[in-house]
Amino acid sequence: MSSSPYALIVGVGDGLSASLARMLAGEGGYKLALAARRPDNVAALARELGALAVGCDAVEPAQVEALFNQLEAAFGGAPEVVIYNPGARVRGPITEVDPQAVAQALAVNAYGGFLVAQQAARRMLPRGRGAILFTGASASVKGYAHSAAFAMGKFALRGLAQSLARELAPQGIHVAHFVIDGVIRNPGRQEPAEAPDSMLDPDAIARSYLQVLRQDRSAWTWELELRPWVERF
Amino acid sequence: MSSSPYALIVGVGDGLSASLARMLAGEGGYKLALAARRPDNVAALARELGALAVGCDAVEPAQVEALFNQLEAAFGGAPEVVIYNPGARVRGPITEVDPQAVAQALAVNAYGGFLVAQQAARRMLPRGRGAILFTGASASVKGYAHSAAFAMGKFALRGLAQSLARELAPQGIHVAHFVIDGVIRNPGRQEPAEAPDSMLDPDAIARSYLQVLRQDRSAWTWELELRPWVERF
Amino acid sequence: MSSSPYALIVGVGDGLSASLARMLAGEGGYKLALAARRPDNVAALARELGALAVGCDAVEPAQVEALFNQLEAAFGGAPEVVIYNPGARVRGPITEVDPQAVAQALAVNAYGGFLVAQQAARRMLPRGRGAILFTGASASVKGYAHSAAFAMGKFALRGLAQSLARELAPQGIHVAHFVIDGVIRNPGRQEPAEAPDSMLDPDAIARSYLQVLRQDRSAWTWELELRPWVERF
Amino acid sequence: MSSSPYALIVGVGDGLSASLARMLAGEGGYKLALAARRPDNVAALARELGALAVGCDAVEPAQVEALFNQLEAAFGGAPEVVIYNPGARVRGPITEVDPQAVAQALAVNAYGGFLVAQQAARRMLPRGRGAILFTGASASVKGYAHSAAFAMGKFALRGLAQSLARELAPQGIHVAHFVIDGVIRNPGRQEPAEAPDSMLDPDAIARSYLQVLRQDRSAWTWELELRPWVERF
Repeated sequence: MSSSPYALIVGVGDGLSASLARMLAGEGGYKLALAARRPDNVAALARELGALAVGCDAVEPAQVEALFNQLEAAFGGAPEVVIYNPGARVRGPITEVDPQAVAQALAVNAYGGFLVAQQAARRMLPRGRGAILFTGASASVKGYAHSAAFAMGKFALRGLAQSLARELAPQGIHVAHFVIDGVIRNPGRQEPAEAPDSMLDPDAIARSYLQVLRQDRSAWTWELELRPWVERF
Repeated sequence: MSSSPYALIVGVGDGLSASLARMLAGEGGYKLALAARRPDNVAALARELGALAVGCDAVEPAQVEALFNQLEAAFGGAPEVVIYNPGARVRGPITEVDPQAVAQALAVNAYGGFLVAQQAARRMLPRGRGAILFTGASASVKGYAHSAAFAMGKFALRGLAQSLARELAPQGIHVAHFVIDGVIRNPGRQEPAEAPDSMLDPDAIARSYLQVLRQDRSAWTWELELRPWVERF
Repeated sequence: MSSSPYALIVGVGDGLSASLARMLAGEGGYKLALAARRPDNVAALARELGALAVGCDAVEPAQVEALFNQLEAAFGGAPEVVIYNPGARVRGPITEVDPQAVAQALAVNAYGGFLVAQQAARRMLPRGRGAILFTGASASVKGYAHSAAFAMGKFALRGLAQSLARELAPQGIHVAHFVIDGVIRNPGRQEPAEAPDSMLDPDAIARSYLQVLRQDRSAWTWELELRPWVERF
Repeated sequence: MSSSPYALIVGVGDGLSASLARMLAGEGGYKLALAARRPDNVAALARELGALAVGCDAVEPAQVEALFNQLEAAFGGAPEVVIYNPGARVRGPITEVDPQAVAQALAVNAYGGFLVAQQAARRMLPRGRGAILFTGASASVKGYAHSAAFAMGKFALRGLAQSLARELAPQGIHVAHFVIDGVIRNPGRQEPAEAPDSMLDPDAIARSYLQVLRQDRSAWTWELELRPWVERF
């Protein structure tokens, strides 16, 4: 297979990742690879978009490296775009949350982001081009009560993204962090009739990702926030 | 003249405002009004774009009100978009800067933004629609030595923009603040040969403004930063 | 009168300034000057503490300069400590607030801080020692709806304080900014019985100011926040 | 042994922890427990201060629980103060750092803080009193190039501290986060002659910890920064 621009989305499953996939494959014109812990979950979406679905537990170094090697073989080069999307919440009073669950949340929210970014950077730097995008949340910039583990993970991911922006941007890699501040609409979630558009439309989010990808390198965004018009902040 | 969507840019003169004007008139499809303290400075640009050029000292309440009244008469309604763009720097050790110059900088950087936003909000709120955008700088989020007056003004403008976002967004008005973190390229400024794209292309900045204007209200950005790939931050 | 360490508090009137005055004169051991727009308001406190009461409108450059000259004559040198304390709120929807009131609030909250800091810096720098402290509020770091003018002023004051910290700290002047996040208790204000200590004790705030003044210059604080234990943030 | 107020410092070894120990035992008047991965490293300090030295790997849930149980038995109750102090740096380009080292750094910088805070909260909440303090760094609020792992860990710890402040403060537990922005002086590190006090004196830092511990609950600090007067920020 010849080398062609492709994007990798890690952590596919929810509404946002599907919108990102469709936006990148459609308007963005990218070939696509979708990585999920359970590839079955993305098989239908991959078929719809002609994308490559790969099973990968993003918190396992060897699996992440194998993922990138597989893509390199399949697409003939480095990805143009890598999006790290997984998030894991642990809720409850600090006294009651399970330490194992907290460790796992930290791994999914942050450590996996490091593993993916490391592999991406290794492949993008030789040609001095590429983009690594991270999906954050309200908890990336504000630690809420009863949500310490999620705050830890999302703060850590933001620290990673900021450090990478300082390190990689001057080498041509665009690193961006999106603070998704609100609830993302999905088919199973009813929006209150009196507050239309009070949940984030995942297609609208995906459009902002695409616009950031298209920015001229003389005017790159490192961080931007997205929230519904009626959201309190 | 019949009512049609139009944008107002306040503080026209430098490279960014001209790019904003061309982007809004061209790709954006807006009719345009350009306000400047000295309308002579924008006459050529106004002719080029078929825009209305209006003289207005943005720190004078009566002049700002008159400006909006004139636009209402000319365009038959409220503006769809208002951009507050002026900036005034005062540099020097705190012990040496002239108090009058500091007062004037505070007025231009911040108070004028309030006056313009107030008139805009009064006209946009009745129809529950519109956008008010503010141009910030590195100094909006970081107070540098020997630049206290500029920091005061740009911090204040950011406080205004954040307060307005909380107040007006739930009423349908999109308020956004752009942190322009770097030097904007202009014809008279030589870019170092070893660092291409090290100054912000004003057209690239303007494109990000337009993209924010086009965001779905379920996923609005309040603040985003733009900086050259090689800029330290 | 011989030269002796003295502190100046600008903006005396409310509960906090009186506590600051008593703390500095008592535990701090400073001689004291109290500046207020209406010196009558501080006459009793000045008598109590043996302090010098001076009338000064802090937004008037000439009056601020005269204030410092008067102190220099009275105390025989530069102040050791200067605290800028005034705050002016303007509340209401952006569409309704009076532009004159907003201009005045910006002057009191921020411009006066610049004038006072400039005079203080001129006198402290020659001996490479001194402290300039600023009283901020929740609105210093968060712009609330219906409070744009206060946000503008307090954001601006914070920008000033941060810029001055970068400029003056390496010259031996300690600049610090206090974010008072909550309501300050005063005799006329009833605290809810079910929430003791839910308002900031002004003596407790004053103690933190004194502790910052006593910090070793190898470990200075530029900013700290103070809020009641039950305050939401 | 009868119940008496005691403090626990986790992560004892460097200059700061020794200063904290001496300050708490001396001026603070606390009985003291010192936890370190290798208790041999703190044996001398423990003897000097009459403190209990306990071996504990803070990233191991069972060891952290055992630590608190041991203290409860030894001192007859819950600790009054718990300080989480460990820090682990991993430096190098993102492409070269070892994933295992990054995982370990995340555990030491952040996960251990969670484990310790959880045990502390469980014991402090029943009596509605106590303080949990976290030692942060420049990297807590700024992600530097070639230091992604440290930024991840310190951002995460800050997210934890902020979440806990929101959760525990209204229940009487004081949570505070210290941003140590600079190099801490230690006997083996020569300070440049031309820049005295350019490294943080650990005793000065410790004094600020003690002052925060003594704050009235009506005016608690959640976060404060400490940096040398000549430090750039």
